Amino acid sequence: MNKVQAKSPLVINITNKVTILDIANILTTIGASPIMTNDKREVKELLTIAKAVGGALVINIGTLDEKQIELMKEAVKVANELEVKVILDPVGAGASKLRTNTALDLLTNYKIDIIRGNFSEINSLIGNEGQTKGVDSITGTNSEIAKICANKYQVTVLISGKVDFFSNGKIVEEISGGSAYLPKISGTGCMLSSIIGAYAAVMDNDEACKQGLKHVLQASEKAQKDVSNIIDFKIAWFREMENLANGK
Amino acid sequence: MNKVQAKSPLVINITNKVTILDIANILTTIGASPIMTNDKREVKELLTIAKAVGGALVINIGTLDEKQIELMKEAVKVANELEVKVILDPVGAGASKLRTNTALDLLTNYKIDIIRGNFSEINSLIGNEGQTKGVDSITGTNSEIAKICANKYQVTVLISGKVDFFSNGKIVEEISGGSAYLPKISGTGCMLSSIIGAYAAVMDNDEACKQGLKHVLQASEKAQKDVSNIIDFKIAWFREMENLANGK
Amino acid sequence: MNKVQAKSPLVINITNKVTILDIANILTTIGASPIMTNDKREVKELLTIAKAVGGALVINIGTLDEKQIELMKEAVKVANELEVKVILDPVGAGASKLRTNTALDLLTNYKIDIIRGNFSEINSLIGNEGQTKGVDSITGTNSEIAKICANKYQVTVLISGKVDFFSNGKIVEEISGGSAYLPKISGTGCMLSSIIGAYAAVMDNDEACKQGLKHVLQASEKAQKDVSNIIDFKIAWFREMENLANGK
Repeated sequence: MNKVQAKSPLVINITNKVTILDIANILTTIGASPIMTNDKREVKELLTIAKAVGGALVINIGTLDEKQIELMKEAVKVANELEVKVILDPVGAGASKLRTNTALDLLTNYKIDIIRGNFSEINSLIGNEGQTKGVDSITGTNSEIAKICANKYQVTVLISGKVDFFSNGKIVEEISGGSAYLPKISGTGCMLSSIIGAYAAVMDNDEACKQGLKHVLQASEKAQKDVSNIIDFKIAWFREMENLANGK
Repeated sequence: MNKVQAKSPLVINITNKVTILDIANILTTIGASPIMTNDKREVKELLTIAKAVGGALVINIGTLDEKQIELMKEAVKVANELEVKVILDPVGAGASKLRTNTALDLLTNYKIDIIRGNFSEINSLIGNEGQTKGVDSITGTNSEIAKICANKYQVTVLISGKVDFFSNGKIVEEISGGSAYLPKISGTGCMLSSIIGAYAAVMDNDEACKQGLKHVLQASEKAQKDVSNIIDFKIAWFREMENLANGK
Repeated sequence: MNKVQAKSPLVINITNKVTILDIANILTTIGASPIMTNDKREVKELLTIAKAVGGALVINIGTLDEKQIELMKEAVKVANELEVKVILDPVGAGASKLRTNTALDLLTNYKIDIIRGNFSEINSLIGNEGQTKGVDSITGTNSEIAKICANKYQVTVLISGKVDFFSNGKIVEEISGGSAYLPKISGTGCMLSSIIGAYAAVMDNDEACKQGLKHVLQASEKAQKDVSNIIDFKIAWFREMENLANGK
């Protein structure tokens, strides 16, 4: 049984409207306790519970609007005060100024612990002209992007893609593995960010990025055996995520 | 074929953003007709259709905001005028004042027919200090909570948990059965509340709580055979929910 | 491999809160690239990307509110300026004035390329008294409805039901086939509309309606073999949608 399963951290998600159900499901699958919020007036109470029982805040900008941006700022501010960790998933940064600027606002005015994004998104956050196609990423090979971003905003960075890049600002690591099916599921990235939130609630940020990612990659490798369709892979991946959480 | 399948009631849901898809799917699975609304301006027309063809209103406070609270009040007011039954799922009551107070406002200023919640939620509604962890419940064994709540608000109460408690204010019943997998699916409670809405549209409230719950529990017992993972259980449970609705 | 798979168009969805995840998943399944938006301020940038890489805008009115109506109008206006195709799914038109009037507003004040709805919905758009039960349709047999609607609003019309009707204003075609399981899945119609959006991004409107529908119908016929439950059918249908996209 892994640490997330053992401690069942509370992961508070302020997230997009698309993959919100899968985010809740994958968190439950690995033994974490998901909650979603939509209103400023309850963030302090929820974060206080997260502080007490162990938890983290995950911010996902996939379907922003003005009200949600205000909610995100308030939640991150309170999380910073209470010293609850904050994970940012800058979905679609680079595809619109609204997304890029919201991510930059959070990164420059608040303390973010971990950013998890694809190459295009992270690239846009360090001021490089984004090449993006909606929420899908161009493929990047320049691992230095992760380190530059980590140093610029004093965060731990995980870039997902065919190869994954990790940086805490000092070192850069390439992490390989996984399945070609993973990016074919809508919301793999969103789920990974919330999974890392669950791990970050129970261990340090570097370890959380690596162990959360490893959980996803190993499960995907096991899941892809004997499947030849996205839907079958997704079901198998959920199954293997649970098995790994239980030490199977 | 059961009564829900035979009459296909219209279940109007004002619900959370997380499990809304599963709520629609489970209602379709048992033969009910789901509709979701997001705007005050259409609640009277939708409730009038529900009144005409047979239906119920299900209020789920899982991801509240100010606009949705106004929508809920308007919808419950109109449902009361039209004598369409109202089921309340007080998701996360006790975890934030926003949730607790919204549930209490609905219970004290409008007529609610049925409350379906977990032990923490129902406990918080009768003024006991809630112990809660997000949307997950502490385990309660005091069945009197159901009766106190039922009498306090003149509602039928169903508390879900390892053991389920039913009370109409006069009697309390313990209902056992089900599967340990049920609480591991995000949204089981939400789905149960909407299922009870479908049943309440075609029979009295006491029977609706018991038969709706029995449908869920029996399907879960059949579903857990031959599965050893949450995802497989969920699929099997949907399958057995449909089979039971069809008298299989 | 079909054209959608080959060109992977960007399908921008302004859609309902219920089936949004399945819409994203089915688009990914057939090789298209979904994005959802919730804020006026980014529609121009997203539509500009769609124009550049190939794409379409799909408007689904399933869970309208005031803010979303404004967003839809702005997005359709910009799509018209940029000559990005617009598909309208008038979910629940006829069930409430809010829905009917929103659809009519879009149809009369902007250029819509394709409408995909059920019989009740399309019937209400041409001024016939709608008979509707929530988002489910009465069954219609009058194929002329499609032609009248097509001519009235200068759009291509696809009516889904037991038999499907296509009209471009000149001709009417009945298209049969499919599975009785299809309407039992919540969101089949929503998914079909977005699929047609993906097809319309890479071919003319008439062909997009017919090929998108054919993709769905053929997959459903293959999927229904060896299944006897809705949930199993849905999984099999996703599998066959992917297989057909890959020419299998």
